[in-house]
Amino acid sequence: MFAHNKRLQYTLRVNETNPGLANLMLEQFGGPQGELAAACRYFTQAIAEDDPGRKDMLFDIATEELSHLEVIGTMVAMLNKGAKGRLAEGTDSEAEAYRRITGAGNDSHLTQVLYGGGPALVNSAGVPWTAAYIDSIGEPTADLRSNIAAEARAKIVYERLINLTDDPGVKEALGFLMTREIAHQKSFEKALYAIEPNFPPGKLPGMPEFASVYFDMSKGGDVRGPWNQGPLWEFVEVPEDQIAVDGGDGEASVQLSAEEEAAVAAMATRTASDPLGDPQTGAELGMSGAAGSDELNAQPKKGS
Amino acid sequence: MFAHNKRLQYTLRVNETNPGLANLMLEQFGGPQGELAAACRYFTQAIAEDDPGRKDMLFDIATEELSHLEVIGTMVAMLNKGAKGRLAEGTDSEAEAYRRITGAGNDSHLTQVLYGGGPALVNSAGVPWTAAYIDSIGEPTADLRSNIAAEARAKIVYERLINLTDDPGVKEALGFLMTREIAHQKSFEKALYAIEPNFPPGKLPGMPEFASVYFDMSKGGDVRGPWNQGPLWEFVEVPEDQIAVDGGDGEASVQLSAEEEAAVAAMATRTASDPLGDPQTGAELGMSGAAGSDELNAQPKKGS
Amino acid sequence: MFAHNKRLQYTLRVNETNPGLANLMLEQFGGPQGELAAACRYFTQAIAEDDPGRKDMLFDIATEELSHLEVIGTMVAMLNKGAKGRLAEGTDSEAEAYRRITGAGNDSHLTQVLYGGGPALVNSAGVPWTAAYIDSIGEPTADLRSNIAAEARAKIVYERLINLTDDPGVKEALGFLMTREIAHQKSFEKALYAIEPNFPPGKLPGMPEFASVYFDMSKGGDVRGPWNQGPLWEFVEVPEDQIAVDGGDGEASVQLSAEEEAAVAAMATRTASDPLGDPQTGAELGMSGAAGSDELNAQPKKGS
Amino acid sequence: MFAHNKRLQYTLRVNETNPGLANLMLEQFGGPQGELAAACRYFTQAIAEDDPGRKDMLFDIATEELSHLEVIGTMVAMLNKGAKGRLAEGTDSEAEAYRRITGAGNDSHLTQVLYGGGPALVNSAGVPWTAAYIDSIGEPTADLRSNIAAEARAKIVYERLINLTDDPGVKEALGFLMTREIAHQKSFEKALYAIEPNFPPGKLPGMPEFASVYFDMSKGGDVRGPWNQGPLWEFVEVPEDQIAVDGGDGEASVQLSAEEEAAVAAMATRTASDPLGDPQTGAELGMSGAAGSDELNAQPKKGS
Amino acid sequence: MFAHNKRLQYTLRVNETNPGLANLMLEQFGGPQGELAAACRYFTQAIAEDDPGRKDMLFDIATEELSHLEVIGTMVAMLNKGAKGRLAEGTDSEAEAYRRITGAGNDSHLTQVLYGGGPALVNSAGVPWTAAYIDSIGEPTADLRSNIAAEARAKIVYERLINLTDDPGVKEALGFLMTREIAHQKSFEKALYAIEPNFPPGKLPGMPEFASVYFDMSKGGDVRGPWNQGPLWEFVEVPEDQIAVDGGDGEASVQLSAEEEAAVAAMATRTASDPLGDPQTGAELGMSGAAGSDELNAQPKKGS
Amino acid sequence: MFAHNKRLQYTLRVNETNPGLANLMLEQFGGPQGELAAACRYFTQAIAEDDPGRKDMLFDIATEELSHLEVIGTMVAMLNKGAKGRLAEGTDSEAEAYRRITGAGNDSHLTQVLYGGGPALVNSAGVPWTAAYIDSIGEPTADLRSNIAAEARAKIVYERLINLTDDPGVKEALGFLMTREIAHQKSFEKALYAIEPNFPPGKLPGMPEFASVYFDMSKGGDVRGPWNQGPLWEFVEVPEDQIAVDGGDGEASVQLSAEEEAAVAAMATRTASDPLGDPQTGAELGMSGAAGSDELNAQPKKGS
Repeated sequence: MFAHNKRLQYTLRVNETNPGLANLMLEQFGGPQGELAAACRYFTQAIAEDDPGRKDMLFDIATEELSHLEVIGTMVAMLNKGAKGRLAEGTDSEAEAYRRITGAGNDSHLTQVLYGGGPALVNSAGVPWTAAYIDSIGEPTADLRSNIAAEARAKIVYERLINLTDDPGVKEALGFLMTREIAHQKSFEKALYAIEPNFPPGKLPGMPEFASVYFDMSKGGDVRGPWNQGPLWEFVEVPEDQIAVDGGDGEASVQLSAEEEAAVAAMATRTASDPLGDPQTGAELGMSGAAGSDELNAQPKKGS
Repeated sequence: MFAHNKRLQYTLRVNETNPGLANLMLEQFGGPQGELAAACRYFTQAIAEDDPGRKDMLFDIATEELSHLEVIGTMVAMLNKGAKGRLAEGTDSEAEAYRRITGAGNDSHLTQVLYGGGPALVNSAGVPWTAAYIDSIGEPTADLRSNIAAEARAKIVYERLINLTDDPGVKEALGFLMTREIAHQKSFEKALYAIEPNFPPGKLPGMPEFASVYFDMSKGGDVRGPWNQGPLWEFVEVPEDQIAVDGGDGEASVQLSAEEEAAVAAMATRTASDPLGDPQTGAELGMSGAAGSDELNAQPKKGS
Repeated sequence: MFAHNKRLQYTLRVNETNPGLANLMLEQFGGPQGELAAACRYFTQAIAEDDPGRKDMLFDIATEELSHLEVIGTMVAMLNKGAKGRLAEGTDSEAEAYRRITGAGNDSHLTQVLYGGGPALVNSAGVPWTAAYIDSIGEPTADLRSNIAAEARAKIVYERLINLTDDPGVKEALGFLMTREIAHQKSFEKALYAIEPNFPPGKLPGMPEFASVYFDMSKGGDVRGPWNQGPLWEFVEVPEDQIAVDGGDGEASVQLSAEEEAAVAAMATRTASDPLGDPQTGAELGMSGAAGSDELNAQPKKGS
Repeated sequence: MFAHNKRLQYTLRVNETNPGLANLMLEQFGGPQGELAAACRYFTQAIAEDDPGRKDMLFDIATEELSHLEVIGTMVAMLNKGAKGRLAEGTDSEAEAYRRITGAGNDSHLTQVLYGGGPALVNSAGVPWTAAYIDSIGEPTADLRSNIAAEARAKIVYERLINLTDDPGVKEALGFLMTREIAHQKSFEKALYAIEPNFPPGKLPGMPEFASVYFDMSKGGDVRGPWNQGPLWEFVEVPEDQIAVDGGDGEASVQLSAEEEAAVAAMATRTASDPLGDPQTGAELGMSGAAGSDELNAQPKKGS
Repeated sequence: MFAHNKRLQYTLRVNETNPGLANLMLEQFGGPQGELAAACRYFTQAIAEDDPGRKDMLFDIATEELSHLEVIGTMVAMLNKGAKGRLAEGTDSEAEAYRRITGAGNDSHLTQVLYGGGPALVNSAGVPWTAAYIDSIGEPTADLRSNIAAEARAKIVYERLINLTDDPGVKEALGFLMTREIAHQKSFEKALYAIEPNFPPGKLPGMPEFASVYFDMSKGGDVRGPWNQGPLWEFVEVPEDQIAVDGGDGEASVQLSAEEEAAVAAMATRTASDPLGDPQTGAELGMSGAAGSDELNAQPKKGS
Repeated sequence: MFAHNKRLQYTLRVNETNPGLANLMLEQFGGPQGELAAACRYFTQAIAEDDPGRKDMLFDIATEELSHLEVIGTMVAMLNKGAKGRLAEGTDSEAEAYRRITGAGNDSHLTQVLYGGGPALVNSAGVPWTAAYIDSIGEPTADLRSNIAAEARAKIVYERLINLTDDPGVKEALGFLMTREIAHQKSFEKALYAIEPNFPPGKLPGMPEFASVYFDMSKGGDVRGPWNQGPLWEFVEVPEDQIAVDGGDGEASVQLSAEEEAAVAAMATRTASDPLGDPQTGAELGMSGAAGSDELNAQPKKGS
């Protein structure tokens, strides 16, 4: 069960309102790398987890991410506070209001017109948050790696936001939030390596003949490195050796019942293409008076 | 530039058609952990990458994932081949067709009615693939961690699918695809650690006073482990010490201009709630004849 | 800031595992009327709210909804516990596993294959939760009405779920959650009517000549009632009186600059349709040997 | 069945073209509170409704909303008319065209490049309309409340748009559309209260012991009001009294079969975390030469 | 402006309720090829269209598609009528209700639990309708081709639905709706060819040297046909001739300012990968005790 | 199977970086008419296709579209190259960075903050690509028409982008990509007409009595043309003749079992509306002190 205290985890002093900056901050409120995604990710994993240590850790961090969601959302609300009042009360002239709302140079118009300047669960382009952002699959050796990566991404987005503001109070709070992503990443790393073995993830082993092969499928500008050279790797360079690597013919087949054979054949007959003719087409009808393909695209069109 | 050869990377022998199984396989064709997501993830990173070694690796693996997309898609097509012909040509009686399409017990009805049994870019529940599944952000120390996690997840989903079929040809091809995820994960691990340092990701350092703190925010069933104990960690247990950790008052504030103050005040006045009265509400209007709150929910309703 | 306690708001005793029932319960975990939607709705409103009473109430209820999210999610986890272990460890034979996963008769296959039986933020059809479900717009006289409606909808979905299970522990916990929606609706009603006036919502008055008009635009089966009869209403029945109600000509116009006129005219000329001819079309090319429109659709097609 | 007349419900005189304003207007064409959402909401309810009076009302209002969709869409077309011609015919120089399309300061570039200046079913940020906006659930005591709330929201968005334009023809038409939302809200209110009782919605009564309880879950800045004080309410303040309110232990449990127990235990063993060790992690590998956690985040990184 | 008459365009006699069939019919109510998509497609085009003939046609057909939406939605409501009452009133025992709702073998459970059996704007898998289905772009020579294709697709989906039911009333109404798609396709074909020329669409001519080239990029199983042979086509077979077809080097370049050069170089240095080393990785940490890559995947894991 | 070569299909020389232009180009990278949509469309059709000629053609063109995706994505990367370095390395002052990122006047802020300037699979408004854009349904006489239309749309979007840039290298590459859409459209036209007959699409014939009828459902501004006049068409003008065209009563009915009848009747009773009363409503409660409906909307509100 959750409880709430109205004091924030980090005190927030914003210098002046700025709807354009508020809009950028939405990236970490309702964006894919933001705090709602983090909180939901760990909370749902915590519920499903049976290992008591991981369950505790996941609830601890989920609860902190909810508290971060509150900090970043409150920052959006502070930065939008002036815009909210002026829009709701219509205190600007219409022309001023229009200039103000379209002049910020990013999507803050959406935030103001549709959401009234409140912290909406959208990213900085106004795209609603979706659980498609969450990639938990219920296997800890995979989910912990996903969490590590998610913290790394969130750290970077905070870093970019810090580079975009010179309001010291905003900068400091963003710095705190960014730092916590580092701490969380460290916890998830420890939790992953506390499972032994954790690689390969899951239970089934791979097929040994393919687990250390590197297929050089992109030619030109080839560069070797530890990811495809050394004793760990078999490097397969010749294109022909990359096809049908099982030694078969590379074809696909399925056994059909007689009834299925007949239905497939009927469809094939009905939709057969005639490779021999040269049928007149709608495109040819559409080039009025065009004598041949060469002239088709070169000739000026009516109205040009 | 891409080139294509119609032989598959792995030969595919399917024992018999099975639209229900085809539908489950869509998970790795158009699902969040599937091959389109993998191919798009590495291909877009490759285009943006400037490091020649990583660029080469990303194009190599992206190209292989496209080839896997073809294998899994072809598997769907083989498993659906009978259903496709029978539906298109109407060779079943209507009653048979209805029983067949609703009897498979999962979402294969959608695949057949809407997509004609072809391999559609949807997951096994029919949800269209979305680029919201891709979490690349353009910083290699984050993106490589995301790739490692993505391979781990894909490996697990293949493992689950393998556990669901006893068609040997399907099982073997799935085993190959699963194994390649292991190999790719190893390459991405090598590429990540070939960047030094790679932690914390990005450029800005964290605030040292918060980078090794663990906030114990979920109480009951606490379990300590390497993720929150030992010399690396400062463990903060007391709730009061988790609030306003900067030492401030935990409040949020923003400086408003006089004009903004006035607009905010006007809105506050207009929408002020009166905490003293006990206004009659729509809900009370809606409980006809209800004498008081206690009886409200207990009394039988008309029509019950 | 949030804090968490691992005991639930309501004790949960589930009789036996049932992935099909678990899947139905997802409706209130990751569905549009579910607890995540409720928690996010009130939490984002609370952050933006300046009225101290409403802010407190919104945080109180948001926190409770998060606690309900935990109850319903835990219920999903309990009902899926058997499926999760068997799938992850591959303890069934493949044929058994396939039958089990496709035999539940709803979308539980998705939940198991993709999410490993964990409580995923999807509805019972596997559609990921989206913030498009949240309709807060930052004006309390509108948002409180939205909250009242949301509680009413959530109450109904719980009622339907209660009708679908005879597990007494599940039934009782659902009953608790349903009841709390009733209590919350009552709080929001009180909060709405504590704002005076609250109708019409917002600040601008309507145009008096149109605010009490009812346009009878659907003919046949007309039934009058308090929504369109009595002294409150002007009932406009004649279709001609429903068009161009401002008394104008019902046309749309815009003043164009000379340059714009020219561009519009050029486009009109280029794309003008010739209403007089009877051009041969692609469709006609496509009906091989068809003599006329009457026979077109009646004749048997090749392959039938 | 529907019929159409090309005259609008309200005459539209637009002063001059303005793609930026056109883009804002899309909010009520293809946005969540817009006219398509309204029309679809009432039309689908009307089809399912069996009560003749409500069915008639829902069809009447759905038909009017379609007519409003036409008015607002035509407004978008008028405001975009110049942009459409110039873009399609390429009458600007490229540099002029680029400046014009990126200079409007909101998302009108999308509208022009992708939709050619036509009224697209997207909101003002370019997000495609989705039926996830519609919250009908097929129970009139809930759906009518949803309709009341939807009209309130639409009224507010129109109010905001009115505050953003000083074109008198646009302003007047928006005023008409806003006023009609007020009238519709009144109809839906009457229809709701013509059902007796209508609260609580649906059929099942709540559990009396929880229907009038208010849980004070957010601490700090508490304010009492009619939503949680007075004879109607039991106010529960002590955190411990908010947990496991059924009097149980607040735990969740499920009875597993022997086979399920075994599978769960196998998974637990395989993925058990070792709480005692302090495993080296990938993060530690990634801080090259870092001696300890304190220095980790403080030290300058290569390249800075 | 629209008007409505409660009689349908086609009389509907349904033999018996069938929620499973109702669910399949949603494909043409809220699915991508369904009637809402059709109505919205033509209605938005009609509003933007300036050619009086096409505008009239588009409004005519949009209005008819709305009337079809009503027919198919009413069919869903009739087929669900029994389910709706039983669910809302709870007249089944819980066990019966559960069996009934999960036994239909497709997604009708979602339709019933979430939407109460009403016709929801979702497809047969429960995916909400999205305006992403509509591909209008505001150029008639493209949009009319899109309309022709859309009618062809809708015709096919109706054909599949007809093959799935033996209820004569349902079959007949579906036959009517299918036939109207044929008629609409014919109108759109006529309208396209009434524009001369209409190919290539739009105004700019293509580059003559590339407009009739066919690149044979997929090898194996090559088949020639009118789409790539004959005097119209230049067939380019050699892979090397398909790269950098402009005669350049196939490289991409951009001129950077000095400041940009410096920033790009700094990022390259910071994130440079070391191609020479063989760094230990997290994966290696994760295979406890594994001596080398060969044994890695073959060895049994703990717990298996 | 796919192979890749790092040289592009068309050499790319970009004059200078321009994040605003990069953002517009995303329309053809991750937008609905872009190259990913094209590649996925043809690739999935190719996999399902059994006709060897069409299968070959679809793989050829799918492979080329992937190569175009690379060209347009590389163009985005080049145009963003400066922005990427400066943002990642923080080389601007914060104020400069903020001005730069919000001053471009379109959504490039999203691209930079969230995706780090890489080519993301979003459109120019930041909306993630979705497979809902792909309309393949598995019947060649429909899918080829969809392909023809898709090529026409893509051609137009390229034409618009060409009109927006005066960078000669960008213009030339866009010209090449645009031209290839023309060539592809021609191939698909030939392939469609190589199937005889191909109209109406699919197998079932229409009902002859409705296949050539044109319903004149939109009145005012009627214009006749080949789409509704001439010997091909029966023109139905009178509204009454457009209703219940089967000659029935236009009603919908379903036969209910006795049990269903009872449940429907119970629900009707419970939710019956009383058409006679004039119940007080929440709206009336909400207009404090309002004496009647006339004064309701005209009176000034508190706070205005």
